[in-house]
Amino acid sequence: MTPAKLNLLVGTDVVDGRSIDKLAKHSMIYKLDGMTDERLSEILPTIDALLIFSWPKQLNPDNLQKMTRLKFVQSILAGVNHIPFANLNKGATVSSNAGAYSDEVAEYAWALLLSAVKRVVELHVSLREERWTLRRTLDAGTQVMILHDKVLGIIGFGGIGVSVARMAKGFGMRVCAFSRTPKRVKGVRVYSGERGLEDLLRQSDALVLALPLTNQTTKIVDRERLAQMKNTAVLVNIARGELVDEKAMYEHLVAQPNFRYATDVWWYKESRESLKTDYPFLSLPNFIGTPHVSGPSGLATGRPAQLAVDNTIRYLEGLKPKNIVDPREYVTSYPY
Amino acid sequence: MTPAKLNLLVGTDVVDGRSIDKLAKHSMIYKLDGMTDERLSEILPTIDALLIFSWPKQLNPDNLQKMTRLKFVQSILAGVNHIPFANLNKGATVSSNAGAYSDEVAEYAWALLLSAVKRVVELHVSLREERWTLRRTLDAGTQVMILHDKVLGIIGFGGIGVSVARMAKGFGMRVCAFSRTPKRVKGVRVYSGERGLEDLLRQSDALVLALPLTNQTTKIVDRERLAQMKNTAVLVNIARGELVDEKAMYEHLVAQPNFRYATDVWWYKESRESLKTDYPFLSLPNFIGTPHVSGPSGLATGRPAQLAVDNTIRYLEGLKPKNIVDPREYVTSYPY
Repeated sequence: MTPAKLNLLVGTDVVDGRSIDKLAKHSMIYKLDGMTDERLSEILPTIDALLIFSWPKQLNPDNLQKMTRLKFVQSILAGVNHIPFANLNKGATVSSNAGAYSDEVAEYAWALLLSAVKRVVELHVSLREERWTLRRTLDAGTQVMILHDKVLGIIGFGGIGVSVARMAKGFGMRVCAFSRTPKRVKGVRVYSGERGLEDLLRQSDALVLALPLTNQTTKIVDRERLAQMKNTAVLVNIARGELVDEKAMYEHLVAQPNFRYATDVWWYKESRESLKTDYPFLSLPNFIGTPHVSGPSGLATGRPAQLAVDNTIRYLEGLKPKNIVDPREYVTSYPY
Repeated sequence: MTPAKLNLLVGTDVVDGRSIDKLAKHSMIYKLDGMTDERLSEILPTIDALLIFSWPKQLNPDNLQKMTRLKFVQSILAGVNHIPFANLNKGATVSSNAGAYSDEVAEYAWALLLSAVKRVVELHVSLREERWTLRRTLDAGTQVMILHDKVLGIIGFGGIGVSVARMAKGFGMRVCAFSRTPKRVKGVRVYSGERGLEDLLRQSDALVLALPLTNQTTKIVDRERLAQMKNTAVLVNIARGELVDEKAMYEHLVAQPNFRYATDVWWYKESRESLKTDYPFLSLPNFIGTPHVSGPSGLATGRPAQLAVDNTIRYLEGLKPKNIVDPREYVTSYPY
C-alpha cells in the first residue's frame, strides 16, 4: 500500500503548468488563486504543505490559525523575512529559496556597482538637464573610479555573494567577503565576526550587501558602520532595504557627497516594501534607485519556481528539504 | 662625439614634471603652453618631433607649414583622427597611443553595457518622475536582460576590445569579436571581413564598438547594419561618435523601442566632438549618454602620458616607435 499523498496548497500563480503537473504526482494540490472563502475555510485544516511566492493576503492570522496540520512552507522568494514565523505551528519547517536567483541578482549588483562608480546615472541626468560641457579632464569630485586593483567587499557570502565575487575576476579587483561562518573560496579573503566586518568596511572601495534580512542583520548598516566606510566608497544593496538604517543613510549621503548608495531594494512602510521614503533620496546626485527588478529578472527565467517545486517534492517524498532556515532568526511580526 | 639632440615641441600640459625631465635628457624641449606668437614662429622651423594631447589650436595651417623639419608626431589621445595628416610633411611618422587606456575604457564600456541591459538609468529616471510602482513581475517591454549565455559582440579587437572580452568571462557570456586581421584569443570567436561582421551583428545580444575612427570605419554603423542587429540588442560606443550614422541611429531608436544605444562619445559638429546633436537623443528612454569621461578617467591614472613619453623617447633615441599608424587611413581635413 502506497502512503496517502500529502495535501499541498499552492499560494501563487508563478508556478507553471508543467511544474503543477509534477507536483500533482506527489501530492493532492489545492490552488489558492480564485478559491472562495468558504472553500478555503474547509480545506485549510487539511493542508500539510504550503508553496508560496510572497506571503498570500488570504492567509491572514485567522485563516493561518486554521492550518493546524501545516508542517512545511516553501518560499519562491529567495528570502523568508515575509513569513509570519511567530504564527506558524511549532516545529513547522520553512525553506527559503536561497541561491535560486544568485546569478541574475549578482549581475544586477554589478550593474548598480558600475553605474555608481562610473557615475553613469548622474552624468546622463546632468546631460539631460544641460548641466555639462565636454572637458579633457574631470574636476575634483567628479572623478570616475577605476576598479582595477581596488577592493571589493561583499557582505554576506552565500549564493549571490559568491557569484558577485566570480564576476569581479575580469576586473582585476581584490575581493574580500564577510561571512557568518568561515568559508574558503579561491581568490577571496573571507572575514568573520564583528571585528572582521569592521576590517572589511574600512578597506573596501566598493561594497555589495548580499545578506538575508534576519533579527541579526536588520539595520546592520547603521550610522556607526557607515562612518567606518571610506567616504568615497560605493555601497550597493540588492538584498533588502531594511538592512540599512534609512535616516542614517540619508544623513550620510548629504554629509559625504562622494559616498554613493545604489539600491534595488527599499525600506518597509506598514510592513511592506515601498518606494515611498521618509527622506528625498531621489533628489540626491549620489543616490541611485531602481524598483526591485533584480528578483523579477531572475524569476522570469523560470528557475526559481522550478527549484522551489523540486524542494517541495523532496518534502512531499519524505526527504529532508534543502535551505531550511532557523525560525529563531526570524521572529517577525505579521506582514500586514 | 654624441649626436646633437633633436628638438621636441610639447603641445600639452598633461605631461607631468618628471616626464618632462625624462624627455629633457633625450631632447631639447620647447613648451607650447604660454609661448608668444613671435617665439613660436621662431622655433617652429627647428622642431623635429611633436608630443600632443589633442591637436593644439596654435598649430593652425599657417604655423604647421613652418614646421619644415617635423618628422614625428606622438598623440596622447588613443586615437589619431584629430591629426591633420594631409598637412603634415610627406613621410612624417605618426604614433597613436593605442592600448594606453584599454582597461579604463573597457571598464567604462561595461558600465554602459550593464546600465543599458539592466535598464538602470531608465528605471532610476522613472522613479524620480514617480512613474513606477513595485511589481512582482516585469511587463513586456520592461524586461531586464540576463547576460549569462548571451552573445557579446566586440567590434574592433585591439587593446580595448581584448580587455572588454576578458571582463566578460565572469558573466558567462559567449564572446565574439570582429577584427580586420585574423587574431587568436582564447575563448573568443573572431570574425573578419564584411560577411564576418554581418554574422557577428546578427547573433549578438550586446555589442561594443571599439574601433579607431578611420576612412574605413566612419559611419560603419549605418541604417543597413543597424537593421542586421537584433531589435532587442544593446549597442555600446566608447570609441568615437562618428562610427555611427547619427540620423540612422535616431530613426532606429524611435522605430525599435527595445533596441538600446549607450554612448560615451558624440558626433562632430564643425569638426569637433559636441554634446549638441541634430536629434533629441536624450529625450528617448532607450538612449544613454555620458560626456566622454572614459578617456579622462584613464588619463587621470597618468599612464597614457607616460606611455606616450616613453614612445617619444624611442623616436628621439633613433629606435622605431610603437603604434605607427598608416596615414592613408586618415586623410582627414584640418580639425578647425
